[in-house]
Amino acid sequence: MALLFISKIDDPGEWLPALRAARPGLDIRVWPNAGAVEEIRWAAAWNPPAGVLARLPNLEAVFSLGAGVDTMIADPGFPRHVPLVRLVDRLLTQGMTEYVLLQVLDRHRDGALFRAAQAEGVWRKQSVRPASSCRVGILGLGVLGRAAGSALMGLGFPVAGWSRGPKDVPGITCHHGPEGLTALLSRSDILVCLLPLTAETRGILARPLFDRLPRGAFLINAARGGHLVEADLLAALEDGRLAGAALDVFPKEPLAAGHPFWTHPRIIVTPHVASLTQPASAAPRIAEGIDRLERGLPLLDVVDRDRGY
Amino acid sequence: MALLFISKIDDPGEWLPALRAARPGLDIRVWPNAGAVEEIRWAAAWNPPAGVLARLPNLEAVFSLGAGVDTMIADPGFPRHVPLVRLVDRLLTQGMTEYVLLQVLDRHRDGALFRAAQAEGVWRKQSVRPASSCRVGILGLGVLGRAAGSALMGLGFPVAGWSRGPKDVPGITCHHGPEGLTALLSRSDILVCLLPLTAETRGILARPLFDRLPRGAFLINAARGGHLVEADLLAALEDGRLAGAALDVFPKEPLAAGHPFWTHPRIIVTPHVASLTQPASAAPRIAEGIDRLERGLPLLDVVDRDRGY
Repeated sequence: MALLFISKIDDPGEWLPALRAARPGLDIRVWPNAGAVEEIRWAAAWNPPAGVLARLPNLEAVFSLGAGVDTMIADPGFPRHVPLVRLVDRLLTQGMTEYVLLQVLDRHRDGALFRAAQAEGVWRKQSVRPASSCRVGILGLGVLGRAAGSALMGLGFPVAGWSRGPKDVPGITCHHGPEGLTALLSRSDILVCLLPLTAETRGILARPLFDRLPRGAFLINAARGGHLVEADLLAALEDGRLAGAALDVFPKEPLAAGHPFWTHPRIIVTPHVASLTQPASAAPRIAEGIDRLERGLPLLDVVDRDRGY
Repeated sequence: MALLFISKIDDPGEWLPALRAARPGLDIRVWPNAGAVEEIRWAAAWNPPAGVLARLPNLEAVFSLGAGVDTMIADPGFPRHVPLVRLVDRLLTQGMTEYVLLQVLDRHRDGALFRAAQAEGVWRKQSVRPASSCRVGILGLGVLGRAAGSALMGLGFPVAGWSRGPKDVPGITCHHGPEGLTALLSRSDILVCLLPLTAETRGILARPLFDRLPRGAFLINAARGGHLVEADLLAALEDGRLAGAALDVFPKEPLAAGHPFWTHPRIIVTPHVASLTQPASAAPRIAEGIDRLERGLPLLDVVDRDRGY
């Protein structure tokens, strides 16, 4: 009975002590040194190479090491019968809330304008608007969207959200489905994308969506690079439909040297840091999952492959 | 029975409609056109010129048009027997909370570092720390300090505060007096100044205070320029005691062209915009004060001249 750790980007030096602290005595192997494959019952993985999981005959569950599962779902080599468990972690949620608050406040309080004034050495005072005049719309009302929305609401921003199916979140005006999307967009001065990346949402941040926002709206994408059509963003900034954007994710990361986003005066680029998995806080979630399997309880936070998240 | 509006910086075109909406029928005069001075019972004022108030024989109260009353208190021409009412306003408080949250989050989430990386066109990823590892200290636990502290606490930052006398604020570790100041400073990774400017607090943000902060602390001053000894800040940034500062207020405003703060890579300058009085929201507070006087009730939020705030 062993756990196989599989990731090219996560550091086993951080993860293994955290996992051992969360479940003392756990037999952990680090891919590619799996040992006897029939002993592997669980995997903690981030984008495992094709075929790796299929070679584990007694695999009972795969625990994702990050919040987004789009790449693993798209992998044809992922064994269909093994449940994939999404990482739901307090610090991951809190980190995303901080990022969204920071970017919303920076836009609402004219951060870019004051930085430009400072660069010119000019005292350019201008009035402050109340949060109640700045309507924030959130695409995606999962754990991350709901947490960010509640925090924004607490600061006085009018918040509405949109999801595929109907949801009910206290204090947040909830829209859903194709018609609901237009209603959400038409009242969003700042639009925050926290959607999962699925066949339905890929490329959603594009011209037809931008055209339904109020003129001069601001876009924050902290979900996945695949949500955004980059050329459409540049065109919408050019013609004033969008006033600016803060982007943490990109179709190809790291963002290439010389990419037009780096030097665009109205785009804030951050290097996919909105929310990073923190082993000390995430490992106990994985240990809990193993514990539930051992006790014959149903797993929580299992990904629905047909839905895509 | 008339109200005299006295300000060289506030716009009567915004204030008069707001005051009339809050108290229909109110006779409002705009200085210097006071009319018959014996008819003036109340003043709504921001730094009235010397002698103006002393010439109003029937003045019952002066309502400040801004949060800080230091200049009016220091004015020897201010009639001692007339109560000065501080402006306590929801939007003023909310605006300050937004400013403090923005600057704390920008520091905590390495905003300056990522802006520099973007300017160089470099993908410089680095780990995100949880809010629980970033201790915020607040100098001043008045209405503004308590509101900002509560909001920061809600995001998971460990918050402590300091005030002249003992205070008790739920969730915030409260220190007071000279000994309490050292305790507050020694655990503050980010220090936020929201003190009133008094004889005791003038120049408090200086070398002896900086030296008691953890090395690499960050300073936010959104109170008054007079709290800061500018040369000491520059020296503390130079030798690494302070990692950076966000300043909204300055001894002389506008900040002079060529002032070293403008171009300092680790100072964020904003042009006194943390919190601005908004007439629509503040006028009802003044109308309430007049109403209390008319009904023989004690005024609220009266400044204690000896204490200085």
